[in-house]
Amino acid sequence: MQKVSSEISMSLDGFITDPDASVGSPLEGNDPGRLHDWRFDARTDTDAAIVDEIYASTGAVLIGKRMFDVGFEPWGDPPPFGMPVFIVTHEEREALPMQGGTTYTFVKAGIEAALDRARAAAGDKDVGIWGGATIIRQYLKVGLLDELQIHLIPLLLGGGIRLFEDLDTRGIELRKKGSIETPSATHLRFDVVK
Amino acid sequence: MQKVSSEISMSLDGFITDPDASVGSPLEGNDPGRLHDWRFDARTDTDAAIVDEIYASTGAVLIGKRMFDVGFEPWGDPPPFGMPVFIVTHEEREALPMQGGTTYTFVKAGIEAALDRARAAAGDKDVGIWGGATIIRQYLKVGLLDELQIHLIPLLLGGGIRLFEDLDTRGIELRKKGSIETPSATHLRFDVVK
Repeated sequence: MQKVSSEISMSLDGFITDPDASVGSPLEGNDPGRLHDWRFDARTDTDAAIVDEIYASTGAVLIGKRMFDVGFEPWGDPPPFGMPVFIVTHEEREALPMQGGTTYTFVKAGIEAALDRARAAAGDKDVGIWGGATIIRQYLKVGLLDELQIHLIPLLLGGGIRLFEDLDTRGIELRKKGSIETPSATHLRFDVVK
Repeated sequence: MQKVSSEISMSLDGFITDPDASVGSPLEGNDPGRLHDWRFDARTDTDAAIVDEIYASTGAVLIGKRMFDVGFEPWGDPPPFGMPVFIVTHEEREALPMQGGTTYTFVKAGIEAALDRARAAAGDKDVGIWGGATIIRQYLKVGLLDELQIHLIPLLLGGGIRLFEDLDTRGIELRKKGSIETPSATHLRFDVVK
């Protein structure tokens, strides 16, 4: 059955960006790579298998407008998605086909409409909600998220954007599905109990 | 060699108390037990072994005044320490011997003096800094903490006291020592790199 699954890297103190993350410096700010080392320089076979599994099971990606703005340049062309990407936004904008199977489609009709579009594009695969924090919280809050994957990084950033901030968590219950330990991350996976 | 080791339970969203924790309702507020289920109702043999190992290796405990005020009544007599407990405080106060090996000693000469007292009392065992958040952050910040143990609970509390808040983390590096997975907690252990 098609799942809606978020995935994101978070520091032990709860941040998904460095204090100084900004456009052109996605998610990392002054100290590039530390949150995402497990995907790149410090990648073990286990980390690689986790990324492979995420890509293999995901048929469409959904992200927020800020993440798109920050990521667009560094992701380049072809972007590292290779599948349809839907961006929740407040602006009207034409779809942007890129190389390698990625098309950026902008949806201004709200998070439910964006998810409907992504679901249809994903076919029998899952929809991946890959950030940022606001969009993950929004889907969690309205009960549209089935699974939460957090790559917990042994790092204290001291500032930046928190994944969990100003979230009324009443009614949200998680069930741990397990965790996988690698040198640079603890890969946690939770079902959102419906 | 004697270590200074903190240990505390933290929700996935970073809180060590429920939003409504208060005196007489230690660490748990309106929804008792969820952060600490792994120590009590939901305890597995693995969870029990982790607690046993902490108690066996710890010769003296150091806590903050707020934690003492909140915990004093529910901990009862004998308190669940069974060893010397040092409380960092701003008030002059006489030591309070309890049953079962616990003595509450109040230290108003600052966190370094309190740690010196606890080190001496611990003999060749470790000093356990068992909370709250402020005291753990203070020792971490000044470089006096050797090890950080966090029992990460698959729970979103949405509010309360954050373990990591307003902490300038520059210069603080952690090295993961491993994690142990049980149904109600991910027991994480980090060395603070000196």
